[in-house]
Amino acid sequence: MMPKVYVIGAGMTVFGSFPQAEVHELARDAAWEAIKSAGVHPRKIEVCYAGHAYQGPCFGQKALCKIGITGMPVFNVENACASGGSAISGVFTMIKAGAADVGIAMGGEKLTSPSGGFLPIVADDLDSSMGRVMPAGFAMIARRHMEIYGTTLEQLAAVSVKNYRNGLINPRCHMKKNISVEDVLNSPVIADPLTRLSCCPVSDGAAAVILASEKVARRYTDRPVELVASVLNSGKRTKYGLIHERSEMSIRAAKTAYEIAGLGPSDIDVCELHDPFNIAEIIHYEDLGFCGEGEGGRFVAEGKADLDGEVAVSPSGGLLAKGHPLGATGVAQVAEIFWQLRGEAGERQVKGAKVGLSHTVGGGVSKIESGACSVQILKI
Amino acid sequence: MMPKVYVIGAGMTVFGSFPQAEVHELARDAAWEAIKSAGVHPRKIEVCYAGHAYQGPCFGQKALCKIGITGMPVFNVENACASGGSAISGVFTMIKAGAADVGIAMGGEKLTSPSGGFLPIVADDLDSSMGRVMPAGFAMIARRHMEIYGTTLEQLAAVSVKNYRNGLINPRCHMKKNISVEDVLNSPVIADPLTRLSCCPVSDGAAAVILASEKVARRYTDRPVELVASVLNSGKRTKYGLIHERSEMSIRAAKTAYEIAGLGPSDIDVCELHDPFNIAEIIHYEDLGFCGEGEGGRFVAEGKADLDGEVAVSPSGGLLAKGHPLGATGVAQVAEIFWQLRGEAGERQVKGAKVGLSHTVGGGVSKIESGACSVQILKI
Repeated sequence: MMPKVYVIGAGMTVFGSFPQAEVHELARDAAWEAIKSAGVHPRKIEVCYAGHAYQGPCFGQKALCKIGITGMPVFNVENACASGGSAISGVFTMIKAGAADVGIAMGGEKLTSPSGGFLPIVADDLDSSMGRVMPAGFAMIARRHMEIYGTTLEQLAAVSVKNYRNGLINPRCHMKKNISVEDVLNSPVIADPLTRLSCCPVSDGAAAVILASEKVARRYTDRPVELVASVLNSGKRTKYGLIHERSEMSIRAAKTAYEIAGLGPSDIDVCELHDPFNIAEIIHYEDLGFCGEGEGGRFVAEGKADLDGEVAVSPSGGLLAKGHPLGATGVAQVAEIFWQLRGEAGERQVKGAKVGLSHTVGGGVSKIESGACSVQILKI
Repeated sequence: MMPKVYVIGAGMTVFGSFPQAEVHELARDAAWEAIKSAGVHPRKIEVCYAGHAYQGPCFGQKALCKIGITGMPVFNVENACASGGSAISGVFTMIKAGAADVGIAMGGEKLTSPSGGFLPIVADDLDSSMGRVMPAGFAMIARRHMEIYGTTLEQLAAVSVKNYRNGLINPRCHMKKNISVEDVLNSPVIADPLTRLSCCPVSDGAAAVILASEKVARRYTDRPVELVASVLNSGKRTKYGLIHERSEMSIRAAKTAYEIAGLGPSDIDVCELHDPFNIAEIIHYEDLGFCGEGEGGRFVAEGKADLDGEVAVSPSGGLLAKGHPLGATGVAQVAEIFWQLRGEAGERQVKGAKVGLSHTVGGGVSKIESGACSVQILKI
């Protein structure tokens, strides 16, 4: 019988633009907050998985040794936007394996660089070289969703409005602004129909969580949050093209996670999902089973994803408002769910939240079989 | 009781300079050879760890989907020169955990680039910015070893001569040349006392191995090679400086691996160790316990590391001759040990080899607490 795994502490930096900070300093700060909040002695931490996409060799070791933590096995893991979620899965499996009782999953990224925050274009990435960069790919998904399901520009905008509204009451959020549907529609076009307020900002930041086996978790806290499932997979090409390929991977990961947890979509009280663009949040409502296929636009417009809705989605502000420092994102999502389930989320607290889900998708827009999807289910 | 883990198949590309090849094509070729040699259906592979240091997002998925393998969890792992060894440890632990019965560990790197194969200098890497690049750091270690222990230039050269001699009979080796001690001493100085033939070449290549639990290993082969221990750790700063810091990490990893295996240095018949520079092989003889402290120079000069010596070290040609495509290296080492223990190493076969050890060290020369060390022990 494999041991249960618990989250016993969490930390994250404010997400934002910190051009002067070293990424390892950001990760150090997040790790230290997580360690302090767990009340665990650093020597008790047996393994580290550190997620990042563009931060150079031995990211995790460089962050940890800034607080004098050296010697342990560190796996630096990368899965594009799902790097942080992959770090969670790595530590989760180590503890399930009995290879460790306490581990740290961390992630960080510095996307604001001297050259303005542009990511390198990979030599073999024909999509990006030919102009189908991420916003363009998601714009095509949005147009397709509008055409097939009648999703409207106002419904897309409603996602941004909701997430900015949540972010405004999250002290760690990057974009702090009260915006309306009209603001979203009237902001500069990035890739039609997506405007600037339909897209996540370019952010720096880091996050960390401490995971522990059931054997030791209650030594550190009487309110551990169980990490019931942590599922990582990679994409498969489908015959239905763009929109369905991203969804296929998410649907499959969520299905596995629900099965492991013995829970379903209606059990989820709070959710942090992968919303780098407002259209992404809409398709993922559907993928995660919060509404039927094609109903995502109405779901958000009717307030069902609000803090007091059927399921509170992106209470932290999500990638759209809180920010999306790639390697940090999946870890920060688990931190947010941890705080929500413990009732420690302050003004943005989802009342009575007992079960939460986090979800990230990484990798190319079209070459989806080279992407990754990460889903976690947590409960208290 | 945790299940035993076995290597059931291995593959690798020839290491060399392949500027026209895409790194994912190299990794695909290695993975496909490993899969075929194991006789395992791709659908039976449940998890992938893919090691690389500089190859961009979702390296493992991109390689696997080129042979139509999609959908599984892929952890792309990075630990500088120990990235490949980390991939081995990742799959090893997953199988120990019961999270998978069959997994693939792969690694690849393309270091010959349009700009001439130079690696990016990381912004916070003061050492490299100030000129203490890898060859300079190892030159300092060599001078110190010569001063303390009386190691000679000829002994350093003997490592290169031995490894080039082994590489000459390995069809997958990059540098194919018969060299003498004089050739090494007279080749151009890179960082005194290290000459060009004291340093590994800039190589491209990939490698892969298939690992399986004891439950299923014998379905695929009647000669599985047991992966008895797979240890990953990170560095600790010591009060003794440069030379001892690299050693401390290696000594500690080897000690743990020997303990797990219930074996000692005298049991090792064949060893692939981390020899990016000839001095590194000398200090690692000592770290791994093949000879006493300071005796590494004499050990190699007396032929004790030859194919028919006390322990055959770098039978493949090692990093020095075979090449060192970072992410591939640790995986290629395990492939070589697998072939040696199965008696499939052709002309370079170490006679009667029953137990083998592989070892890589990754990370900065001086900031060693941000490095990683990987040690594997295998037996048949």
